[in-house]
Amino acid sequence: MDYKAIINQHKESYLEELFEVIRQKSISAENVGIEACAELVGEKMAAAGVRHVEIIKGDHHPVVYGEHIVSEDAMTLLIYGHYDVQPPDPLEEWDSEPFEPTIRDGRIYARGVGDNKGQFMAQLLAFKTYMTAHGNLPINIKFLIEGEEEIGSRNLEPFIRTHKDKLKADLVYTSDGPMLSNGHPYILLGVRGMLYVELNAEGSAFDNHSGNKGNIARNPVWELVHLLGTMKDSAGRTLIEGFYDEVKPPTDLEKELLMQLPFHLEEIRRDIGDDTLEMTKEEYYRKLCFEPTLNISGLVSGYGGEGAKTIIPSTAKLKLDMRLVMDQDPEKIYQSLEDHIEAHAPT
Amino acid sequence: MDYKAIINQHKESYLEELFEVIRQKSISAENVGIEACAELVGEKMAAAGVRHVEIIKGDHHPVVYGEHIVSEDAMTLLIYGHYDVQPPDPLEEWDSEPFEPTIRDGRIYARGVGDNKGQFMAQLLAFKTYMTAHGNLPINIKFLIEGEEEIGSRNLEPFIRTHKDKLKADLVYTSDGPMLSNGHPYILLGVRGMLYVELNAEGSAFDNHSGNKGNIARNPVWELVHLLGTMKDSAGRTLIEGFYDEVKPPTDLEKELLMQLPFHLEEIRRDIGDDTLEMTKEEYYRKLCFEPTLNISGLVSGYGGEGAKTIIPSTAKLKLDMRLVMDQDPEKIYQSLEDHIEAHAPT
Repeated sequence: MDYKAIINQHKESYLEELFEVIRQKSISAENVGIEACAELVGEKMAAAGVRHVEIIKGDHHPVVYGEHIVSEDAMTLLIYGHYDVQPPDPLEEWDSEPFEPTIRDGRIYARGVGDNKGQFMAQLLAFKTYMTAHGNLPINIKFLIEGEEEIGSRNLEPFIRTHKDKLKADLVYTSDGPMLSNGHPYILLGVRGMLYVELNAEGSAFDNHSGNKGNIARNPVWELVHLLGTMKDSAGRTLIEGFYDEVKPPTDLEKELLMQLPFHLEEIRRDIGDDTLEMTKEEYYRKLCFEPTLNISGLVSGYGGEGAKTIIPSTAKLKLDMRLVMDQDPEKIYQSLEDHIEAHAPT
Repeated sequence: MDYKAIINQHKESYLEELFEVIRQKSISAENVGIEACAELVGEKMAAAGVRHVEIIKGDHHPVVYGEHIVSEDAMTLLIYGHYDVQPPDPLEEWDSEPFEPTIRDGRIYARGVGDNKGQFMAQLLAFKTYMTAHGNLPINIKFLIEGEEEIGSRNLEPFIRTHKDKLKADLVYTSDGPMLSNGHPYILLGVRGMLYVELNAEGSAFDNHSGNKGNIARNPVWELVHLLGTMKDSAGRTLIEGFYDEVKPPTDLEKELLMQLPFHLEEIRRDIGDDTLEMTKEEYYRKLCFEPTLNISGLVSGYGGEGAKTIIPSTAKLKLDMRLVMDQDPEKIYQSLEDHIEAHAPT
């Protein structure tokens, strides 16, 4: 049977299989629904016809491993993906429920549909379709669907080392990344690394009344604001000593290659949601590819709801993510950050 | 019948009446349960025997007004209180449900029990007890229980002007404020005023991915941090031009009087929840009574939950409360703040 006919025939049930996986929460940061989602993905794999499916547990969120060996001599393709998703907050920004997939204007809206459930389910259903059409595959396929990508895949490297033989493959295929704006396929030669740090500033043991204790009780938010002020200047340059030590400017060849990449400011503006963005092509790719970031991804203290609450907050929570470029060592950068905080934070 | 006997006899039902009022949410900042709470307080007043009870609505949260006139010639006491409460967040800090009163070690724990439901209900139940004991009161009583105290009582002044005759009284009684640490009754000669401001910093139209858009998309939290850094120095002094213009230091007589107030550093530390607090008596009362505050009561941006989320937040919300001292004009201070932001905020 022709594969297009099979897809047409199963369109609804394929979509429903994806939706089931999407409906199953799997927020790695909060450890919500992780085990259940791994089980479900394993079931989908087995149902697709993958001969050997294993949920590998350990000192990490379960890895769903699938193996379909047709011949020792055939080429082996390893498909990598992840079933975990980012937390869906802030919930009020969603036009539809994050874990209830909704189709609008031909696109599916749901948490994780584009990162990465949609992709690995497409690959799995492609496998299933091929099996239905031809009875078997001409190559060996391995699936590695992990559950910690959204929290940095810290256990993936040791996992791969441990299961080196099992994961042996001729080609690794993954579709989890951005697209070029012209829609062309592209080769990814590397990505920035990440260092993620959480900092908790503490004042009193509990929130105080800002009228009765104002000027008296310490306010950890003010202290954090002053500390952050020493970390970055208003032009966006990081002031932590040693932060840029290993950073190299692009070579002439790299600059030349960058200038051959597509660049449409209007598209970037739309993509980022800021129509005031002003940037040259050179600046854009230099900042994106050759410069590390120091980003505040969360700063939460005191009352953020409607109206007024008159408190001196007792704590302030800061989340920093740093995207590191070639030659930067996350351990060294962490040490620089620690030294900086030591030198500038109030005691 | 002796009033003590009546109290003993009704202890349970009195407590239950208070608990009913506490269970009824009444968060003025979020306009949650306000109308229902006003109705309930009105019912309690009528049930206590107050002859005329009115829920006065208008361009404000309902005011519960009660009037019990025994004679034109008798002295009139006006009791002021408020039925609204602060938002109970953060909920995870509560040992028991905020709107489910719980007794532990002889104290009632619940949102609003000490501010101000406990107090006005005690007064109302005292009225009821007196009525039961003596059949009537020797004086006229008026109750004014409002629903906007926690959001600044902005409509109270015009309300009082409008209902001047109705509220006419020889004495106003209120119990809504802190206690001296030695437990003695004290005379309050004035309180600091308040200016509450909310500031929303906006970057892109939506949150961006910190890996794909890092260094490119604007981060409004960083911008807010830099703005806040210009508002206060690390020693706690406000840097907004004109902020201290009208502030006068205490006179010699005031200093002398302050020094006669009780001061127990250990008690203040316990009360504030910070056993590292170091402060002299002079400094404590000067800061508390003669200096204005610039307090961050909320700063919320991006992700504050468990684990990591890698975003460039699109917005940052700041709540500032300023406690103003004698001679400071809130309108002028607001203008100074606006000028400061104009001069220092990124465009």
